Amino acid sequence: MKTVKPFAGVLAPVLTPFRQDLVPDPERLVTHCRWLLEQGITGLAVFGTTSEANSLCAEERIDLLDALIAGGIRSELLMPGTGCCALTDTVRLTAHAVRNGCGGVLVLPPFYYKPVSDDGLFAQVAEVIERVGDARLRIYLYHIPPIAVVGYSLNLIERLIKEYPSVVIGLKDSSGDWNNTEAILKRFPGFDVFPGSEVFLLATLRAGGMGCITATANVNGAAVSDLYDRWRTPEADRLQAEITTLRKTIEAYPMIAALKQILAHFRNDPAWTAVRPPLVGLTRADAQALIGNLEQKKFALAA
Amino acid sequence: MKTVKPFAGVLAPVLTPFRQDLVPDPERLVTHCRWLLEQGITGLAVFGTTSEANSLCAEERIDLLDALIAGGIRSELLMPGTGCCALTDTVRLTAHAVRNGCGGVLVLPPFYYKPVSDDGLFAQVAEVIERVGDARLRIYLYHIPPIAVVGYSLNLIERLIKEYPSVVIGLKDSSGDWNNTEAILKRFPGFDVFPGSEVFLLATLRAGGMGCITATANVNGAAVSDLYDRWRTPEADRLQAEITTLRKTIEAYPMIAALKQILAHFRNDPAWTAVRPPLVGLTRADAQALIGNLEQKKFALAA
Repeated sequence: MKTVKPFAGVLAPVLTPFRQDLVPDPERLVTHCRWLLEQGITGLAVFGTTSEANSLCAEERIDLLDALIAGGIRSELLMPGTGCCALTDTVRLTAHAVRNGCGGVLVLPPFYYKPVSDDGLFAQVAEVIERVGDARLRIYLYHIPPIAVVGYSLNLIERLIKEYPSVVIGLKDSSGDWNNTEAILKRFPGFDVFPGSEVFLLATLRAGGMGCITATANVNGAAVSDLYDRWRTPEADRLQAEITTLRKTIEAYPMIAALKQILAHFRNDPAWTAVRPPLVGLTRADAQALIGNLEQKKFALAA
Repeated sequence: MKTVKPFAGVLAPVLTPFRQDLVPDPERLVTHCRWLLEQGITGLAVFGTTSEANSLCAEERIDLLDALIAGGIRSELLMPGTGCCALTDTVRLTAHAVRNGCGGVLVLPPFYYKPVSDDGLFAQVAEVIERVGDARLRIYLYHIPPIAVVGYSLNLIERLIKEYPSVVIGLKDSSGDWNNTEAILKRFPGFDVFPGSEVFLLATLRAGGMGCITATANVNGAAVSDLYDRWRTPEADRLQAEITTLRKTIEAYPMIAALKQILAHFRNDPAWTAVRPPLVGLTRADAQALIGNLEQKKFALAA
């Protein structure tokens, strides 16, 4: 029996808006998610790195997920991040997501202790699966060693797929290392691989991957989705070059603060600039330079 | 006005016992804390790295702290770890500790996002202090870059001391780098510095430090405390050499699992071996080798 693939295409790790007192703002989040879906985004990876989810406590994530669903976002389009350092937090968030019909969950490994063995990481994922105990659970492993330091090795991925073939069905590779993404694609055919940047979108699709989950989809989702839709056409390489250029323009600055600055500017909504510590907003000079660089470019928000 | 120093001497980052289902075991924890105090330990740094605190959710830490106090542990002897990735978790745990009369709190920086600026880390600590809003709050910064990666730079320490002189009163330095400990001691006289290993205890005391907060105090607290009591005597260097030797014997193995194995063996209480993922217990061979090495040595538990 073939497991249904709940996600394909371009997913956005959705930015989390905060009020001035740094409380998450569910109304702006719902509005932003609706806009992303209108842009052609096929899944909402809420509570990822870009979402500052690791700066939110479990209750805040639960309340926001409830608010999204109450706000009319279809739960099967949601792939919330649920991997925390503590087993009990991961189990709680994962169970809540599954019970609410989320299409999948994106699971960071526990990232405090270092070094940890593959045995220990396997045990963590296995405990989560057993404790959640719900046949609807679909896990996407979240591999982001530049930030989390702890990651999923190829051997660990293999063990997890073998033990839980209908649960551990995919991976987001934010290593930034195409060799790693390619190795996973080659070794695990049918495993749903999403690189963490649209820079690798075309290469991923040509190698059998499912799409990408990329921060810049928060502001440039339409163009990234357009490449996904037309990747077999003669335009593909040109479209890839265009979205890569925009990405490079943005990632010259701290990514999360830069994306919030862009939303604040082009939506004329300064509240979007708020970030939670330990992040800081862009300096005024950086903000001006970034916006200046973008005003000469075509992209969805600027339209 | 001189701020009273709530802690001096040898503190233990207390191991957290788990039941077989990986639920924390408050009874064993209270018993272990009482024994540590009998050994001459002057403070209980519960919920540190050694405590697997980052594998516990906020509620589990709160419940355990309540159980310790209900179990008769004097709250002024407690220095719980309260620093989490999420501002809201750190505020919640810190406020709970202060309201319950804990002598101080040991605060990890938010350790997920990397790199982060000193401005961002300053903002996090400042937000915690302002939100907790309690004059009794005493913060010890927890600097452990080998694990947390994110740490407190000397410039950041200086800013925090200047802005909050009666709150940010000390630091645990688990860098393992004596040059860093020494630099902090020299630059901030009167700031309460505790290295994260008894290997540096004598050097720390000679340089004006307050003691140490060391994992091995869980099994060898009496000898470490003995050096603290006699550091000005001719025996000091010999005592330092002895506790250093025992430390090296233990840290040849993964520290937390090794300490739990030692407690399990010498107390004849196998339940102590349980660790939460992502940690794993010692292999049988490692456990036998470790215990074999220790049986030829003198230390409190073996007595």
